[in-house]
Amino acid sequence: MSLRPLLDFLLYDWLQAEKLAERPRYAEHSRETFDAVLDTCERIAREKYAPFNRLVDTEEPRFDGEKVILPAATLAASRAYAESGMLSAAQDYDEGGMQLPFTVEAAANAFFALASVSINSALLTKGNANLLLVHGSPVQKAVFARNEFNGRFSGTMCLSEPQAGSSLSDVATRAVPDGDGFEADPLGPRFRLTGNKMWISSGEHELNENIVHLVLAKIPGPDGKPIPGTRGISLFIVPKKLVDTEGRLTGERNDVALAGLNHKLGWRGTTNTLLNFGEGRYPVRGSAGAIGYLVGEPHEGLRCMFHMMNEARIAVGTSATMLGLAGYYAALDYAKNRPQGRPQGKAGKDAAAPQVRIIEHADVKRMLLAQKSYGEGALALELYCARLVDVQRTGGAQAAAEAGLLLEVLTPIAKSWPSEWCLEANSLAIQVHGGYGYTRDFPVEQYWRDNRLNMIHEGTHGIQAMDLLGRKVRMEEGRGLQLLGARLEQTIARAAAQPALADEAAALTDAWAQVLQATQAAWAGGEPERALANAVPYLQAFGHTVLAWIWLDVACSMPADGSAAAQGRLAAMRFFYRYELPRIGAWLAVVARCDSTCLDLPEEAF
Amino acid sequence: MSLRPLLDFLLYDWLQAEKLAERPRYAEHSRETFDAVLDTCERIAREKYAPFNRLVDTEEPRFDGEKVILPAATLAASRAYAESGMLSAAQDYDEGGMQLPFTVEAAANAFFALASVSINSALLTKGNANLLLVHGSPVQKAVFARNEFNGRFSGTMCLSEPQAGSSLSDVATRAVPDGDGFEADPLGPRFRLTGNKMWISSGEHELNENIVHLVLAKIPGPDGKPIPGTRGISLFIVPKKLVDTEGRLTGERNDVALAGLNHKLGWRGTTNTLLNFGEGRYPVRGSAGAIGYLVGEPHEGLRCMFHMMNEARIAVGTSATMLGLAGYYAALDYAKNRPQGRPQGKAGKDAAAPQVRIIEHADVKRMLLAQKSYGEGALALELYCARLVDVQRTGGAQAAAEAGLLLEVLTPIAKSWPSEWCLEANSLAIQVHGGYGYTRDFPVEQYWRDNRLNMIHEGTHGIQAMDLLGRKVRMEEGRGLQLLGARLEQTIARAAAQPALADEAAALTDAWAQVLQATQAAWAGGEPERALANAVPYLQAFGHTVLAWIWLDVACSMPADGSAAAQGRLAAMRFFYRYELPRIGAWLAVVARCDSTCLDLPEEAF
Repeated sequence: MSLRPLLDFLLYDWLQAEKLAERPRYAEHSRETFDAVLDTCERIAREKYAPFNRLVDTEEPRFDGEKVILPAATLAASRAYAESGMLSAAQDYDEGGMQLPFTVEAAANAFFALASVSINSALLTKGNANLLLVHGSPVQKAVFARNEFNGRFSGTMCLSEPQAGSSLSDVATRAVPDGDGFEADPLGPRFRLTGNKMWISSGEHELNENIVHLVLAKIPGPDGKPIPGTRGISLFIVPKKLVDTEGRLTGERNDVALAGLNHKLGWRGTTNTLLNFGEGRYPVRGSAGAIGYLVGEPHEGLRCMFHMMNEARIAVGTSATMLGLAGYYAALDYAKNRPQGRPQGKAGKDAAAPQVRIIEHADVKRMLLAQKSYGEGALALELYCARLVDVQRTGGAQAAAEAGLLLEVLTPIAKSWPSEWCLEANSLAIQVHGGYGYTRDFPVEQYWRDNRLNMIHEGTHGIQAMDLLGRKVRMEEGRGLQLLGARLEQTIARAAAQPALADEAAALTDAWAQVLQATQAAWAGGEPERALANAVPYLQAFGHTVLAWIWLDVACSMPADGSAAAQGRLAAMRFFYRYELPRIGAWLAVVARCDSTCLDLPEEAF
Repeated sequence: MSLRPLLDFLLYDWLQAEKLAERPRYAEHSRETFDAVLDTCERIAREKYAPFNRLVDTEEPRFDGEKVILPAATLAASRAYAESGMLSAAQDYDEGGMQLPFTVEAAANAFFALASVSINSALLTKGNANLLLVHGSPVQKAVFARNEFNGRFSGTMCLSEPQAGSSLSDVATRAVPDGDGFEADPLGPRFRLTGNKMWISSGEHELNENIVHLVLAKIPGPDGKPIPGTRGISLFIVPKKLVDTEGRLTGERNDVALAGLNHKLGWRGTTNTLLNFGEGRYPVRGSAGAIGYLVGEPHEGLRCMFHMMNEARIAVGTSATMLGLAGYYAALDYAKNRPQGRPQGKAGKDAAAPQVRIIEHADVKRMLLAQKSYGEGALALELYCARLVDVQRTGGAQAAAEAGLLLEVLTPIAKSWPSEWCLEANSLAIQVHGGYGYTRDFPVEQYWRDNRLNMIHEGTHGIQAMDLLGRKVRMEEGRGLQLLGARLEQTIARAAAQPALADEAAALTDAWAQVLQATQAAWAGGEPERALANAVPYLQAFGHTVLAWIWLDVACSMPADGSAAAQGRLAAMRFFYRYELPRIGAWLAVVARCDSTCLDLPEEAF
């Protein structure tokens, strides 16, 4: 099963990605150049990623006392990715980039996530460098960002701490000015950092010359104490090895020490670490603390960090999606080849008849169609959001603003929905395999384990839900919600004009009305604690409604050519409307009445 | 968190288990003797099981070329269990048993599943020996069953084959008479078996003196060919080592060879094997084939094997349930101790305020209450079914027949419902732990992996669903369904009389009507293929309705003492009615209209 026809359909038939080349920034591009990028990524993923997906699961990163040891395949995958130019694909030509639309970049990266989601966490390096391009000084861009884009350095994002995961306002890492003249360092105002950072992906390894840590820390206020809350947070570049203004290693090791590797349920190709900053293991330049260079203004750290949040969350959603599709393709292949049992009904009663392949059983078909419906729908959503990023970057002022606002509303869904439902798809893929799916001889159990991460990192399900119901649907007096509603109406109008889609158009109209009503009812009392008590069921219902809309919009673009592919997508869309969308009633009911069964229960009663 | 108060409440306050001692078979028993059994099992589970649950996960069984190597803790757990007398707890006093009610046996075994579900698969040994007690000859009982009950031998169930998992009619293992006079062997008619058996738990190990395999195989018909279908299947005892009529090992190894260990996602404390019978690796007594002794009549193998099916499925459901509760207890403990973030609302806006423990967050409460609702509800269901087994065994003729019929209808739910929803509970337990839940430093990821087996073994979800909708709700013209309906009505009447439970009584009335209507609508066309196309959504809706009934019945027995425990259970019941039961509408809709979106989709469209 190849991903390519699905990507081609979504990119070109549905999203009309080739029209992006009409925009000045992408004027050198065409469908041909987009296809060339897709071809390259598909090939590298097939050759350097897919064959090693099980290997990176069984040969987990380990620390030998000096170095973190990774399989050779990890280095090869990481190099091949860097050499493809994908690290800097979105950058300007004069920065060495391709000025590739984000839509195409996201589509191309899907091949890697499908082949081996954890072998090469290039996402963080890109996010890190992109952030520096926006908020860093010219020297910081030249020294750090450029060397991340060319693959010499890799990057991390150091936000969480052992005692502060979802709660960044409790970051305790301190940054103090590094002596007199600290402000005059050409790499940026120089500080000394002390603290611990937890869950740092790729925090320690030997894959590149250097690691550029982007670290959130607090500069003490005039009273010497850290400023409470997120306002006190600043952002620093803390290189593992110190560099000069030309980006050359000075030979000095910075005081960033590996305190431990996290041993995970899945996603084992990516090293995950606890790092100690300034613990004194690698004393540097005669003072205590790890050397860090301020990025942007003091106390603006979170704002800088969140700049890349939408894209990072779209990337997480895409990873979850591709795991879902990877499981689907494996299950489909198995179902087409595994003989077992006989169909229900008269023909099935003949025990002497040969067994049929399990794809002929209705329940196996149901499990496969559910996976297709979740996975393909989620991919469409992710690419739709990626397209919004491009409009935000290159559209006219109003279009860009609208795209930005729509992204704010859709991003929690783009991140959370595939994390939940493509995980469910992976469970169904195991189920299709029966006992074999429970063994490590088949890939599906690993997909399921890998995918379980996605509801946790980059903001848990609960955080996404509170972001959606607490902030996104209310911001600018609900204008994001109205914009989304207008998009739904456009789709509904197109669908209603086609007799074959009229039922779904009506169902979507009704579902959206339920969502709006629940949103209003939740906030009618004006009490955040009660309004948000059922934020997760709200997120689930909102997500299902968004996916129903995406599927209907896709269906409106489907060729009426009677092809098997079109028939399959139409069935996946109908499955979603018939089996999935009706679930929203149960979720929204608790939201609308601010059900407080859980909220009110005292601790001792659990 | 201790399981004991919950068990005591369900056993004594709700099911009034001490009344079982009024029955002649259990007349020597009392609450005191029941409690003594529970005490012993709780202690052994705490000392010999729980400390080694992670160990048996990391030190998976391996084959050194001669022997299967297991951790020493596995042997210790297995011996402690045998020495407790629990292997023969249900047996007659003059067989060395305790004549313990199954209800109490099931409750006592819950401690082991909670502590380490896979370290000691005593279930199969018991099932094997119980089957021989019913269907074996006096010599077979004395030689094999008795030595399984006393722990000298262990037992397996060899049904599946690599090409025949769910489809037993395709069993290809052959059994041919072992020469002249084969019928006169004192251990039973002697055959030679040739074939491969897959997914055989505890198929090879050194924990006991001998392994008693119970093997399904086909005796060729007069034409020399195996009889097609399940009618051709016979049942054989195939000991790993041959024994004499006194149960002493003769020193001869039988031709049962380990062909491979299955490497699983979880449940790794239990060895799972592919066995070759009669491949010639251990030639025995000068002819080809493994020596096996017929149990019962030829061609009656499946009937014999299915005799123990209800109890085995209740045991699987109980395992799934206890994994769900194990995750809940771990998550509850974590939530009570982990500080993170601040509550929503005005009080939460003060960033300088200390962090709260996460159990104070509404969404964490929701995730905990869901786990409690799934896990405690499932345990109640399993014990209810166990109680039916006791009535079936020791009740008057009519009561026994009714209990048997109710068990037929409820067993697919008792097996499938906890497998699905206590797995979901385990996922929520991971989510409560955040990033820590994704690491192997906390137990919850293992519970989730272990629990994923339960939707697969002992009849997959799909098989349970077809059993329920295709057979159980229709057998004896729907009398099982009517009996269940009558039980629901009794509960509804009791609940309706209490103002605090009137809403739930009405909701259950409505839900049951929906189930009945969908059952009828599914079969209205009389086409099995269409009726059963949505058997799994039917199973899900039926299961949720049964659980709602169980919870309401439990609530009717709850003391109005205002205790925290009673308050918690009432909330868990209400959670189920408010958050869970409303889901059935979406599931039943596709059943009632025989939705054929999946069934009709041709293979090439996937």
